[in-house]
Amino acid sequence: MLHAGIVGVSGFTGLELVKLLLHHPLVEIDYIASRSHIGEPLNRLFPSLKNICDKKIEAIDEAKLNNLDIVFLALPHGVSMQLVCKIYSKVRIIDLSADFRLSQSLYEKWYKPHLCAELISQAVYGLPELNREKMKKAQLIANPGCYATASILAILPFLDIIDGSVIVDAKSGVSGAGKTLREDLLFSEVEASFKAYQAAKHRHQPEIQEVVSSIKPVNVTFVPHLLPINRGILATVYANLQDNVEEEFLFDKLQKYYKSEPFVRISKDLPQINNCVGTNFCDISFALDKDNKRLIIISVIDNLLKGASSQAVQNMNIMFGLKEEEGLNLRPYYP
Amino acid sequence: MLHAGIVGVSGFTGLELVKLLLHHPLVEIDYIASRSHIGEPLNRLFPSLKNICDKKIEAIDEAKLNNLDIVFLALPHGVSMQLVCKIYSKVRIIDLSADFRLSQSLYEKWYKPHLCAELISQAVYGLPELNREKMKKAQLIANPGCYATASILAILPFLDIIDGSVIVDAKSGVSGAGKTLREDLLFSEVEASFKAYQAAKHRHQPEIQEVVSSIKPVNVTFVPHLLPINRGILATVYANLQDNVEEEFLFDKLQKYYKSEPFVRISKDLPQINNCVGTNFCDISFALDKDNKRLIIISVIDNLLKGASSQAVQNMNIMFGLKEEEGLNLRPYYP
Amino acid sequence: MLHAGIVGVSGFTGLELVKLLLHHPLVEIDYIASRSHIGEPLNRLFPSLKNICDKKIEAIDEAKLNNLDIVFLALPHGVSMQLVCKIYSKVRIIDLSADFRLSQSLYEKWYKPHLCAELISQAVYGLPELNREKMKKAQLIANPGCYATASILAILPFLDIIDGSVIVDAKSGVSGAGKTLREDLLFSEVEASFKAYQAAKHRHQPEIQEVVSSIKPVNVTFVPHLLPINRGILATVYANLQDNVEEEFLFDKLQKYYKSEPFVRISKDLPQINNCVGTNFCDISFALDKDNKRLIIISVIDNLLKGASSQAVQNMNIMFGLKEEEGLNLRPYYP
Amino acid sequence: MLHAGIVGVSGFTGLELVKLLLHHPLVEIDYIASRSHIGEPLNRLFPSLKNICDKKIEAIDEAKLNNLDIVFLALPHGVSMQLVCKIYSKVRIIDLSADFRLSQSLYEKWYKPHLCAELISQAVYGLPELNREKMKKAQLIANPGCYATASILAILPFLDIIDGSVIVDAKSGVSGAGKTLREDLLFSEVEASFKAYQAAKHRHQPEIQEVVSSIKPVNVTFVPHLLPINRGILATVYANLQDNVEEEFLFDKLQKYYKSEPFVRISKDLPQINNCVGTNFCDISFALDKDNKRLIIISVIDNLLKGASSQAVQNMNIMFGLKEEEGLNLRPYYP
Repeated sequence: MLHAGIVGVSGFTGLELVKLLLHHPLVEIDYIASRSHIGEPLNRLFPSLKNICDKKIEAIDEAKLNNLDIVFLALPHGVSMQLVCKIYSKVRIIDLSADFRLSQSLYEKWYKPHLCAELISQAVYGLPELNREKMKKAQLIANPGCYATASILAILPFLDIIDGSVIVDAKSGVSGAGKTLREDLLFSEVEASFKAYQAAKHRHQPEIQEVVSSIKPVNVTFVPHLLPINRGILATVYANLQDNVEEEFLFDKLQKYYKSEPFVRISKDLPQINNCVGTNFCDISFALDKDNKRLIIISVIDNLLKGASSQAVQNMNIMFGLKEEEGLNLRPYYP
Repeated sequence: MLHAGIVGVSGFTGLELVKLLLHHPLVEIDYIASRSHIGEPLNRLFPSLKNICDKKIEAIDEAKLNNLDIVFLALPHGVSMQLVCKIYSKVRIIDLSADFRLSQSLYEKWYKPHLCAELISQAVYGLPELNREKMKKAQLIANPGCYATASILAILPFLDIIDGSVIVDAKSGVSGAGKTLREDLLFSEVEASFKAYQAAKHRHQPEIQEVVSSIKPVNVTFVPHLLPINRGILATVYANLQDNVEEEFLFDKLQKYYKSEPFVRISKDLPQINNCVGTNFCDISFALDKDNKRLIIISVIDNLLKGASSQAVQNMNIMFGLKEEEGLNLRPYYP
Repeated sequence: MLHAGIVGVSGFTGLELVKLLLHHPLVEIDYIASRSHIGEPLNRLFPSLKNICDKKIEAIDEAKLNNLDIVFLALPHGVSMQLVCKIYSKVRIIDLSADFRLSQSLYEKWYKPHLCAELISQAVYGLPELNREKMKKAQLIANPGCYATASILAILPFLDIIDGSVIVDAKSGVSGAGKTLREDLLFSEVEASFKAYQAAKHRHQPEIQEVVSSIKPVNVTFVPHLLPINRGILATVYANLQDNVEEEFLFDKLQKYYKSEPFVRISKDLPQINNCVGTNFCDISFALDKDNKRLIIISVIDNLLKGASSQAVQNMNIMFGLKEEEGLNLRPYYP
Repeated sequence: MLHAGIVGVSGFTGLELVKLLLHHPLVEIDYIASRSHIGEPLNRLFPSLKNICDKKIEAIDEAKLNNLDIVFLALPHGVSMQLVCKIYSKVRIIDLSADFRLSQSLYEKWYKPHLCAELISQAVYGLPELNREKMKKAQLIANPGCYATASILAILPFLDIIDGSVIVDAKSGVSGAGKTLREDLLFSEVEASFKAYQAAKHRHQPEIQEVVSSIKPVNVTFVPHLLPINRGILATVYANLQDNVEEEFLFDKLQKYYKSEPFVRISKDLPQINNCVGTNFCDISFALDKDNKRLIIISVIDNLLKGASSQAVQNMNIMFGLKEEEGLNLRPYYP
């Protein structure tokens, strides 16, 4: 039995971690903590958890964290790295913030000065489909961003046949922004609407570009949009093919690339968000624009699951040598 | 290991049954059938099931059904009773249609001539909170309607202190109507709208009235409404109190009534649909209009789960002496 | 040409007033004001108004208000009455707040001490279908609440044949709560959900009860609910009939009652929200529960229009002897 | 007074035309027709029109059409051209179908054999911002497609500084598909979901490419997506800049290009759908990805208005020498 702690349970990714680990047969949640709501039962914040989880939110306490097997950090970037610095030598960590996803220079360009830069090189980027082997021994895993997960999984299979310029047009549900009290997240502003935001300025752009470029240099243009739904990301990726190819060739290539992956589903039909929501799957398909020698890859994930919390559980399974699907055989929400 | 069959898997309640039983530790789905799509993999109809369920839809075959421990019928009313008649003597049945919920006379008034009337008296109405003991030995369970489940569970605790005239103003998500191709179920007609339908003419009215009246005679006015959401029912029940009472008295009464029930959650806060969706819970609270000596009881369920498929699994657990919560420890969907 | 001012333009009802009056052929908006955003163009707050309205928000200035023909106050209750006290003798006023809707004692029971009580008796409750004649000479009109408009218009035609106990189960879109930054109004909390709130404790209950009781005493139980849509209210009203009657009788009665009303639409089909949204109409129909001698009346309005701003314009038309439909021939939003 | 007829009033664009022309001060609707529902009042099909429009749907009758000043055809492609052939010599026509938007060869490649090819060269593509002068004398206007309107208006201002390869990632509300009874348009399938469809295979791709290429040859990759909303299109256009430029230069260029256009709104803020819905505006903004020398242009329209019916009215105004804004001073729907 693994003894787990979750720090940052008052947000949506913390909540999802709790719900997932409660059902994990080989994990016990020993400790849930947050910077606020200390002493409150978690199910007062989230009444959906009534009769499901009666744990109380504790203060963040290094001593308690150090006694665990695994700590999940669902904290804002900037906050997370300070805690990592303190507990890294004592306990294995999966950090869901952005703090250890980028090289120091890139992090400091897009975020702020790094307060625990010496550990950046120790962190493994937690995308199992890319880094499974390295993750097995990792002490610190940087869990990928939601947009980055969908985008990178779409690009990787075709990386060797496309040129170095990729466009990602991504669309996300509102839960990606969490429970922040912002006017633009009010129902009256989001419902029946749609918009792009931070076009070519979003912090997942460097993440996608740096991770993919570790295999082959690419430049990425990234434009995120806000969908009037709670959950789900769909990424539409545009890439130029180096040679003329047929659809069958591309489908075979995609299928082979992910043939051993338990959580990537390949299809000739274009994926849609409601088939993925509630699960740890990434659904991928593509279309070929032959006239323009252009490949259009479309990927879908649940932003809070494969884009955050269930991918973190998948990563924990890998770190501890458990069956990778353990605790992740999830019911899709549809309908 | 119980060997189970599900007939009618091409609809939403059939789909939910599949998803639930796949995760039930003591059940094996031996057989899924439908009147259409025979020979197709279920995950072609429901791509969300890809890599989760690779079963094929079979034709309805009495011989195969007779070899099972339990058969779930998710068929339209009228169709279900014909199959029940044929297999009743060989296998235990949970019927999710309306065919065995009402007395013959009431059934024939609201539906059509009954083709298997001799078995009506054998059927047990499958509301565990009401009929748990009788259900243990039942050969045939009539699984309650979704509106009826929410309404009856709201009324029962207060039945002895209210007069005989109850109003149920109920609101349901669209999945209650299934996948039927009807113009009024198109997105463009439902989105951003709301309406009442079949006011004082809906078939769940006699069900609620007859079931409750088996304990104490009540007349029920029932008005259902269509919410622009997929899942969930909220019932607002209005009843006149016989005596002046205090809120504390009512809360105690409610709490005591359901104190041993694993799937009813009591609260002083009014319930909301998104806390229940994805689970087998019924959330109940109330308000007191003292000036008018009127009690307002509000209950919430997931119409496809406690209102249909997960209640059916709860019923199966009871029929076979399993732990009632087995396989029903479900993750709420929120957010 | 009437010279009009709107105070409180940073909220939704203020915004709707601006949009309506811009198209009114006999009105000129001379002045828009707010307590915040002073000096900003209104279309910076509401970019939908770009190229439509280039007015700037001014500070609230009594001198300027006094020079107008008509002032609309779209201010919070408590704030509105203070301004009314100051300008009442100089300019005609339509107050969209609750400050002059109730008798003093009722107001002070449900709200707070009244700071301008001497004018309460001067105010006319601005429901044209009830008070048209009195409104013609009114100096101060108390524009009805949104829930109250839908509820009262449903009850009035049947008042003489029902007993004195009425239940209103009302459902409203989110815009009724305005743009307030509250966690329960975030998209993630409202979407895919539904709830009752302030059951039997909402401030529109005394308004409905007092207005209707001015004709015949009734007691009202009022329970509002929050719909996951932006606009629209549907009220389901339950009343006990004193005698056995037929549907035809009721339909005739309803039709006769509103036969001269330009903005009430009667139908045998139950109304739905999307047919009303965008217009000044109130749609009314009913169902008869003969077994229980109970009448179910259903009314629908656009909460921001007939429930607030377009009703205010209708009221202005009446006050100034204009054609009642002037400027209110509005395109419905559907689809 | 112009005498107008609308053929195809049972669909959404026909409905919008009726609602717009009812308010047009210089137009009288003499005739509404459809292939179905003949003899029915239009407000039975669309109850939102009750008390607004009491016209009956007539059969399609050439003689009646020939007596009008202007005929709007809101018919399916293939049907429209047959009627155009018959009435072209007698009456001016605005055709909302695709039948006269493309050259014959392109039409027959993407649609089917053209049955009125001799008139293709007579038709003027009805995008005022591109073809205003030609439209003034046109006998037949091919009203642009919804996706094409948003896309072309985004591309045109920058055409001379981008290379010949453009990507359009477009997202549309459901009303674009009309009231067709299709399973994928049911509420349960669309709500809380999102998907791409006909990627690189959609019939608006050749329309965009051919229209833009008449000015400067470009190749277009076009991928449409389905939003869970009723109204609105947002197009995100990606183009490669030939030279390094600054944001100010691009903004000036955009502003100058549309400085005289009454229905294009330019902004530095990225547009969102709910600011446009209900109006004839196209909102345009852009972002610059300097690192990749890539321009991202974002445009928003109401697909049923500027994308169809109100653009048709704008076109009529131009054809008959009326003020271009006549009847198009529309209230935005927000909130």
